[in-house]
Amino acid sequence: MPYNVYSRNCPARLVLDRLADKWALLVIGSLREGTLRFNQLRREVDGVSQKVLSQTLKKLERDGIVARTALPTVPVTVEYALTTLGTTLAETIEHLSSWAESNMEEIQAAQARYDRRETATVAG
Amino acid sequence: MPYNVYSRNCPARLVLDRLADKWALLVIGSLREGTLRFNQLRREVDGVSQKVLSQTLKKLERDGIVARTALPTVPVTVEYALTTLGTTLAETIEHLSSWAESNMEEIQAAQARYDRRETATVAG
Repeated sequence: MPYNVYSRNCPARLVLDRLADKWALLVIGSLREGTLRFNQLRREVDGVSQKVLSQTLKKLERDGIVARTALPTVPVTVEYALTTLGTTLAETIEHLSSWAESNMEEIQAAQARYDRRETATVAG
Repeated sequence: MPYNVYSRNCPARLVLDRLADKWALLVIGSLREGTLRFNQLRREVDGVSQKVLSQTLKKLERDGIVARTALPTVPVTVEYALTTLGTTLAETIEHLSSWAESNMEEIQAAQARYDRRETATVAG
């Protein structure tokens, strides 16, 4: 494989960098179930601002991950959907989200252990 | 499942946010093959600074994803390895990196199409 995310100048590193963004991950994950309009996406991805959602969608559209369709209604309706390429990515991202959700208790226990140890070190 | 990355106040959202970081992804990916020392990791993750690598490792250690072992050598040798929890995460992350590497040509073609269209819109 000619591309390598571990090399700083490889274009694959730039793509990984763009995917390594919680809003991009959450937008792609939300579109797994099907086409959504801008405001539906905004409700789905709790906490995202209008500006950040708009920027995130533009980057994902440019990378060929999300397709934007403007319907000739009054006012114009704009819909977003995963492309075929985006669909292949969405499954991997769903694994990452599920991993975070399923392992929260273990992660929180590890954090508590770490923080107790740090406190003990400072006190000792 | 009580945790949900789509809710802004869920702790799983915080974990996703921390994983949505290219350096964290590359460090976890590098440790897939086995234990590495700090300087080995720094060479593996091309372009990472000493400070950022150190901060990334601390966060991953706190989350229970990476284990740090100080060996009683002179000078002290510090080794990093994935925990059992970290190993379950590493496979998903490897999929994400492989996805970026395997689909670079399609992504670059999409970017070129998007940029040509934007230029045409501005000129037209």
